[in-house]
Amino acid sequence: MYTLYIANKNYSSWSLRPWILLTQLGIAFDEKLTPFLGTSSSWSAFRAFSPTGKVPCLHDGDIAVWDSLSIAEYVAEQHPGAWPTDARARAWARSAAAEMHSGFEALRSHCPMNCGIRLQLNAQPPALTRDLARLQELWSEGFDRFGGPYLAGAAFSAVDAFYAPVVFRIQSYQLAVDDRVGAYVQHMLALPGMRSWYGAALKETWRDPDHEEETLRQGVLLQDLRAA
Amino acid sequence: MYTLYIANKNYSSWSLRPWILLTQLGIAFDEKLTPFLGTSSSWSAFRAFSPTGKVPCLHDGDIAVWDSLSIAEYVAEQHPGAWPTDARARAWARSAAAEMHSGFEALRSHCPMNCGIRLQLNAQPPALTRDLARLQELWSEGFDRFGGPYLAGAAFSAVDAFYAPVVFRIQSYQLAVDDRVGAYVQHMLALPGMRSWYGAALKETWRDPDHEEETLRQGVLLQDLRAA
Repeated sequence: MYTLYIANKNYSSWSLRPWILLTQLGIAFDEKLTPFLGTSSSWSAFRAFSPTGKVPCLHDGDIAVWDSLSIAEYVAEQHPGAWPTDARARAWARSAAAEMHSGFEALRSHCPMNCGIRLQLNAQPPALTRDLARLQELWSEGFDRFGGPYLAGAAFSAVDAFYAPVVFRIQSYQLAVDDRVGAYVQHMLALPGMRSWYGAALKETWRDPDHEEETLRQGVLLQDLRAA
Repeated sequence: MYTLYIANKNYSSWSLRPWILLTQLGIAFDEKLTPFLGTSSSWSAFRAFSPTGKVPCLHDGDIAVWDSLSIAEYVAEQHPGAWPTDARARAWARSAAAEMHSGFEALRSHCPMNCGIRLQLNAQPPALTRDLARLQELWSEGFDRFGGPYLAGAAFSAVDAFYAPVVFRIQSYQLAVDDRVGAYVQHMLALPGMRSWYGAALKETWRDPDHEEETLRQGVLLQDLRAA
């Protein structure tokens, strides 16, 4: 059985990727959640199970797989359906997931994942506008080419897992998206795995001061749905 | 036949990854080099062949694969040897490549790839020291576990391709590394593909002002080996 090490569900976008992939594929795993404690102390605590001191990290017996994208590839070798079966859809899905893995910096820095809050952005910086335009272009291309309702066709796959944190960001920051993108967001939010993650995130009472400050700097808080 | 779109060999670390992978594996491809022209005009020029406006991008007939890591996976589906054959080495190699793909920010920002220069760093910022410590820890783990001379064993694979730009950075910025890491750097620099890339980089006369300024800000220029 796999063991998946993750951090706070409310904050940890990188943790969500393999968690939702395994969950939606119905692959059993033990979840080990270690909350963020502030940068340097987290690093030490996380080094106990992850070579980089970062989450997520998957353990399979004595094999450690320490990155969200390499976890997807590791799982894909053992379980059909992690990537689309069609070769063209698979090439597209891998490129789109890799684009998220190393890109969308403005989206990530201006809209840090914080599942339980609703916030009105002060302003939309040009870099964020560009990231959102690219995001919608990319997703729309996926729907056009592979027919939806998922990004690369009729089945949930790793590319949806890689964009799952963006779905929560669109909800939290009320980002303006076109109708088809908005429908995908609603479809994703309704998935059992996404509902389970979200429910657990709302129940968390850990607060990471840096992450909270980074969130609140972006605009005006409208709602905080988390447990006090 | 594949077509691989890249940018300047002197600067483009991301382009080097798939280029050296295909070259060292002996896989034929047409190389299309478009030099950087400054950020916004490059983006428009690059959008003609790459959905993100970034390099590298691999075309295989009408399939576009637009990221260095997804190119490695695409090639791996069609050619043995892109990743190590041994499952443990492969899991390690994929995690190490993914770690480079989304990490080592300080190494990338303080030591931009600039193959033809030699520079003495003004100072080594703590974040760069941490990145170099992690790099050496990671590479040493690879040598210990898989026996060298490559990162994941006896054969060159995609993980070496992902760290090939770091090899040039260590040379350009004269970064202090331990003996075993230094020996790997020399081994890599002597590969036919690396020598070919380096030779072409030195012959380039394009200069990107931003990249030059970013390089020179880091320290004192000792040598510029590039064609005038």
